[in-house]
Amino acid sequence: MIAEIITVGTEILMGQILNTNAQYMAQKMSEWGINLYHQSTVGDNMDRLTATIREALSRADVVILSGGLGPTEDDLTKWAVADVLGVPMEEDAPSRVTLEQYFVNADRKPTPNNYRQVLFPKGAKIIPNQNGTAPGCICEIDGKAIIVMPGPPHELRPMLQYGVLPYLEKRSNRRMASKVLRVFGIGESAVEHELKDLIDAQTNPTIAPYAKLGEVSLRITASVVEGEDPMILIQPVVDQICERLGDAVYSCEDESLPELVARLAKEKSATIAVAESISGGLISSDLVDISGASKYFLEGVVCYTNAAKIRLGVSEETLQQHTAVSAEVAKEMANAVRIHSGADFGVSVTGVAGPGDDEDGHPAGLMYVGIANSSSTKSFEFRFTGQRARLQRVASLAALDELRKALEEK
Amino acid sequence: MIAEIITVGTEILMGQILNTNAQYMAQKMSEWGINLYHQSTVGDNMDRLTATIREALSRADVVILSGGLGPTEDDLTKWAVADVLGVPMEEDAPSRVTLEQYFVNADRKPTPNNYRQVLFPKGAKIIPNQNGTAPGCICEIDGKAIIVMPGPPHELRPMLQYGVLPYLEKRSNRRMASKVLRVFGIGESAVEHELKDLIDAQTNPTIAPYAKLGEVSLRITASVVEGEDPMILIQPVVDQICERLGDAVYSCEDESLPELVARLAKEKSATIAVAESISGGLISSDLVDISGASKYFLEGVVCYTNAAKIRLGVSEETLQQHTAVSAEVAKEMANAVRIHSGADFGVSVTGVAGPGDDEDGHPAGLMYVGIANSSSTKSFEFRFTGQRARLQRVASLAALDELRKALEEK
Repeated sequence: MIAEIITVGTEILMGQILNTNAQYMAQKMSEWGINLYHQSTVGDNMDRLTATIREALSRADVVILSGGLGPTEDDLTKWAVADVLGVPMEEDAPSRVTLEQYFVNADRKPTPNNYRQVLFPKGAKIIPNQNGTAPGCICEIDGKAIIVMPGPPHELRPMLQYGVLPYLEKRSNRRMASKVLRVFGIGESAVEHELKDLIDAQTNPTIAPYAKLGEVSLRITASVVEGEDPMILIQPVVDQICERLGDAVYSCEDESLPELVARLAKEKSATIAVAESISGGLISSDLVDISGASKYFLEGVVCYTNAAKIRLGVSEETLQQHTAVSAEVAKEMANAVRIHSGADFGVSVTGVAGPGDDEDGHPAGLMYVGIANSSSTKSFEFRFTGQRARLQRVASLAALDELRKALEEK
Repeated sequence: MIAEIITVGTEILMGQILNTNAQYMAQKMSEWGINLYHQSTVGDNMDRLTATIREALSRADVVILSGGLGPTEDDLTKWAVADVLGVPMEEDAPSRVTLEQYFVNADRKPTPNNYRQVLFPKGAKIIPNQNGTAPGCICEIDGKAIIVMPGPPHELRPMLQYGVLPYLEKRSNRRMASKVLRVFGIGESAVEHELKDLIDAQTNPTIAPYAKLGEVSLRITASVVEGEDPMILIQPVVDQICERLGDAVYSCEDESLPELVARLAKEKSATIAVAESISGGLISSDLVDISGASKYFLEGVVCYTNAAKIRLGVSEETLQQHTAVSAEVAKEMANAVRIHSGADFGVSVTGVAGPGDDEDGHPAGLMYVGIANSSSTKSFEFRFTGQRARLQRVASLAALDELRKALEEK
C-alpha cells in the first residue's frame, strides 16, 4: 500500500507553525509498514488544494490530509475533496447532534459557520473527533481512499490511531500493534550497532529507533492477520533487545525517566532531594513536571559555584583536594542534600558543561553522579560529548537513571 | 517572485527527523516578501526527485532544495538537478582545494566518495559552506533558478542568509533587513489586537508575530532598493510598537530573557540567587544555560514543599496565615535566598501549576514573583492560563522579566 501526506494550512506553509503533523503521520506510516514517497504542504487555496490532491491520488493508494477543517470560510479541505470526487457536500446528522450538544455543554450558541464542520463530501465515512469539534472523514474513489483529519495535533494524533488505523488494517486485512522500549546510557549509533542484524533483518515486526537528546527509543511494531496475537511476534524481539542492551533498557512501556522515577518513588514510598551543579535545575524541573511531585520530591538545590556547594555542606577540603568535578564532591553533595532535607535518597550531579575544559583541566562532558541513602553513598563517572545544552540535559538524565536503579533495588 | 521549497531525504520523509528546515525557509520567504505556495518532501530517489523538481519549476520562479548533498551514493540532489537542466556534472576547482584543506586540518584522508561533494551541475554558481564540507549552488534555467543547500540546519541557516539572500535581492534588485522585538507579559492575541491596524496595513516593512510559550517575537522586515537604508522604514514601526506595548517589549535585539538578565548582571556587576516553587528549577536552568553563569548566578533552591520553604527561611506563621501561594511567601523566599547566598538580588516564584485548584482553593495559573535586594523586597501577582508545563515555563519567564526590570533600574 502506498500513502501520501498532504498538510493543509497557510500557517504551516508560511512557517508560522512547525509541521509536526507531517512527521507524526510519516512515522506512523513507517511503523505500520505503509510506503510513503511524497509529503506536501499547501495553503488554504481551493485551486492549489484540488490540484495537489489530484496529483497525490495519481501516485498513491491512500491520500491523507490534515488541516483546514475549522469553521471559517478559509477552511476548504473538505470542499476540495468533494470537488476531486465530483460529489456535493452533505450534512451528517449524528455530527450535527454532537456539535449542538458541545455548544449546550459550553453554554454557548453556535454561529451559522459552525455548521460547516458537520458538512462532508457525499458518501464519506465520518470519523468522530473525541477531542474537538471537527470530525474527520474517509472517502473512497476507484479503489483508492482520501482521508481527512483536523490539524490540531491533540485531535489528529488520537484520530489517526482510533479512526484511521482500523480502516487501513481493514483495507490490508491486517492488524498492527507496537511496544516502545526506552534506552539510556548507550548512544544511538551504538544501539544500532548492537542491534544491526535485527534491524537489517526486520520485516515484521519492524524496529524503529528514534534518538532524542541522549536517549534512544525503540518502537517494535508487528502486523498480524485479524485474530492473531501481535505480541507473539513482538515479545521475542523485545526479549532479544533487552538481553543485548541489558540494564540500559529502562522501560518497556514507553515511560520517561522522570515518570519512572516518580512512579517508583510513589510505589516504594521513598522521598527524594536533589543537588545539581552542571544540570542547573533540570532534574528538579523534570521531577516537578509530574503532577503530585510534592509527595516525594522534598527539595532541590542548584549549587553551581563552589561557595554554594560549601553552603550546602560539601567540605572545603574535599573541594580543594579533589576539585568540584569529582566523585568525592558528587557524593558529599548527594549526602548533604539528603541530610538537609530529610529525604530517603539524595541525588547529585557535578560536571563540565563547556565550552572547553574547566579551570582544573577537566574536559567538557566529564561528570559524576552521586546517590546517597541512609546506608551508603555511591558515585558514578560519565564521559559524554556534545554542546553545552546537550551535556546539561544528559547530566540530568544520567542522574535520574542512577536514581531509578537505586529505587529499583530498594 | 514565487518560490517553492523541496526538502530532500528519506529520514525526513519517514519522519525520523522533524522538518525544521521547511519551516525555517518558509519563514524567511515570508519575511523577504517572496510568495510561497507549495512545500514538498521526497526521499533520496532519482526518479521522484527529478519529477518533483520539474513540477516545482513549472509553478515557481525559484525552487529551493535542501538536503542530499552528503558524500554517499544516496545523496542525489545535485545529480537530479543536472538531469533536469540537461547538463553534465563538473568539478569546481576552488571547492576541491577547500575540501582537501579541510581534510588536512582534520588530519584525515578523503575517500573517493568525498569528492562527490565538489561536483556540481555544469554552469552552477557555487555557494561556499562556512560550516561544513558540502557547498551549495545556484543554477539558472529559462530565467528561473534552482537553489541547492545542505540539510544540516547549522549549515543551511547561515547559507540562506549569506549565500541565497544576496542572490534573491539581486534578482529582485532589492535589499532586505529586519529587526526582532521580544515581548513578554502580553498574550499573542492581545499583541495582535494592539497592533491590528499596523499588521493589517503592512506591506513594507512586514510585521510577523511568532508566539513561543508565553512569549511573542515580532520580526519587522523591510525591503529597499539597493543603496537605501532599510532602518528608515523599520525604525518608525519599531517606535510605534514600543510605544503601544510599553515595558512589555524587553528586547529590540532578539535577546532572550535569560540572555538579557545575564548581560545586565554582568554589566552591573550584580549577583543573583533564585528560590523556585512552581517553576521547579527552570529559572536556574535558564541562567546556567548561558556560559559564564558562575560569575553572577550564586545559588538556586527548588523549594516545592512547605517544609523546604521553611528550611530556606520562610516563616511557618507566614505560610499558615497567607498560604504558600501568596505575595508574602514570595517576598520571604526571595529575601531568604538572597541573605543565605549573599547575592545582590533574590528572585522567587510561587504559584499553582495545576491541574486544578490547589488545596487552599487558589486557581491554577495564579502566581507571585518576589524580587529582593538589600534595600527593598517587592512582589508581583500574575494570573496565567494553560496546561501545567506551560504554567511552569511562564512562571520562570515572569520571574526573569521582573528581575530584568529590577536590574535595568539598578
